[in-house]
Amino acid sequence: MQTPSLLLEKFENTLKNVSYPECPEGLYEPIEYVLSAGGKRLRPVLVLLGYNLYREDFEKAIPAALALEVYHNHTLLHDDLMDKADVRRGRPTVHKKWDDNTAVLSGDTMLIMAFRHMLTCDCLRKTELLDLFARSMQEICEGQQYDVNFEHRNDVREEEYIEMIRLKTSVLLACAITAGALVADAPKADTEALYAFGEKIGLAFQLQDDYLDVYGDPAVFGKKIGGDILCGKKTYMLINAFNRADEATRQRLFSLINDKDMAPAEKISAVTNIYNELHIAELCCEKINQCYDEAKAYLEKLSVSEEKKAVLWEFAASLLGRKN
Amino acid sequence: MQTPSLLLEKFENTLKNVSYPECPEGLYEPIEYVLSAGGKRLRPVLVLLGYNLYREDFEKAIPAALALEVYHNHTLLHDDLMDKADVRRGRPTVHKKWDDNTAVLSGDTMLIMAFRHMLTCDCLRKTELLDLFARSMQEICEGQQYDVNFEHRNDVREEEYIEMIRLKTSVLLACAITAGALVADAPKADTEALYAFGEKIGLAFQLQDDYLDVYGDPAVFGKKIGGDILCGKKTYMLINAFNRADEATRQRLFSLINDKDMAPAEKISAVTNIYNELHIAELCCEKINQCYDEAKAYLEKLSVSEEKKAVLWEFAASLLGRKN
Repeated sequence: MQTPSLLLEKFENTLKNVSYPECPEGLYEPIEYVLSAGGKRLRPVLVLLGYNLYREDFEKAIPAALALEVYHNHTLLHDDLMDKADVRRGRPTVHKKWDDNTAVLSGDTMLIMAFRHMLTCDCLRKTELLDLFARSMQEICEGQQYDVNFEHRNDVREEEYIEMIRLKTSVLLACAITAGALVADAPKADTEALYAFGEKIGLAFQLQDDYLDVYGDPAVFGKKIGGDILCGKKTYMLINAFNRADEATRQRLFSLINDKDMAPAEKISAVTNIYNELHIAELCCEKINQCYDEAKAYLEKLSVSEEKKAVLWEFAASLLGRKN
Repeated sequence: MQTPSLLLEKFENTLKNVSYPECPEGLYEPIEYVLSAGGKRLRPVLVLLGYNLYREDFEKAIPAALALEVYHNHTLLHDDLMDKADVRRGRPTVHKKWDDNTAVLSGDTMLIMAFRHMLTCDCLRKTELLDLFARSMQEICEGQQYDVNFEHRNDVREEEYIEMIRLKTSVLLACAITAGALVADAPKADTEALYAFGEKIGLAFQLQDDYLDVYGDPAVFGKKIGGDILCGKKTYMLINAFNRADEATRQRLFSLINDKDMAPAEKISAVTNIYNELHIAELCCEKINQCYDEAKAYLEKLSVSEEKKAVLWEFAASLLGRKN
């Protein structure tokens, strides 16, 4: 079994050598631009790891890895357009560098190219693979719509939020690792356990992102602390604060979040104080640990060697910044 | 073999009974809205006709017919967003009735749903079918990009224009009829001839649309005459006028097209006069006839009975408002 860092290197080399049509002008440049911007390449590495659990010749899973990465970048391109985000990975987003229409059409083309990469995959269980990929894509659209809908609601329940991040984030990680295993023709019990493993890791990953926005070390987190608070994002933290607060605190929190004139640092501090009063940090850490433990339990079920399980687990733990 | 009108009726019934998820709110309503707006259903009928040339039980081709229609409506939804078009089939477009983000996300979902319909198709040559569909989708994006690029050019050559409308319009008609034949496991020579037939009919269809915008009978055409002239659209007519005019006429045509203050009727009449001087109508009719004859020649090559050829030809001729 290869190490994740070697798989990442192999994938980057493949991606660099993908060639795009030169015509028509304006269609493929934005696609190359987006795909060359870097990123963790988490999904393609998961595809290759999923394959590597069962077979050594990971090159066979490269088309599936490309499919996942191109699709993921399609979602970033269209999400940035919808969010009117100006910057992604330190560079102007496609609709800023080009225009909105270019973002729509190049994004559509990436979705189609992702599917075409998957179609070139040499896999005994091709139908299952394609069904999984297409279903995941549709679920991710649903997750995105829930996220949009939650912006206008103050009564989102914890289960609803978990379901939203499962759809928006976890499903694609689960799809990635399962796709790799399917290409390797892994046992059905294993592909199911891997899917559930991916879902749980995805939830832990997103919940940790919510947590670190408030309690993270700015030097390690890589983003400014309090960003979610300032834009009033319905995170696990805010939703649970709303749901656990008494009426007076609820009103205070509501006013704080909607206060457009308050100084940023003051707002972050006031909201964090409410989180502290309500022990939201503990609640979130508990939930992260639960997902983490559940992921581990699914991983234990796999029919592969303990050594291979350890490679996968170490990778998952590293994503969450943990040692074990 | 069924008549096109019976196949249309069967398809409409199927489409009416497709059920959409109720959640999340806001994602599937626009999709139902678009698909229930009617239209000629040309592509699904072509799928079913392509199947019916070889087999009677056309129900087997219904998933492919749904795939083509859902995909076609995806392109209309995103094209309307990019064109900022307010009305489609007498109703507000999705980005007008909802908003731009809804149009992006519901449109993406339709593209995925189109693929999922195709995945449910029971077909011996599934890989070929999916490859054809995905390749066609990507070509249509390319055609759309060429169309956008041509807006900023005054030196588009006739061959470039023909290639653009082949990609933007013909490819999907060719894909539709070929998909039906593939599901019916038609001989390879036939699927190739049908693809070429679809391409030629598509070109004739689009060129006729360009012609009728200038020379059509408003009562029959269904759109206002001169619409393309008023918005300066690079049609077969305008491109050839630019290419055939002497320098003085070329300048006059250029000024006319870019004149923002001229009364519409006056502009239409002045541009039409230039077309008349340059015999653009004859040129266009010649090209339409050439495509029409080429389509007929491809149809003649099919291994099916003369009766079946006649049904398909009559349908193609009716699309072009011809008797034979």
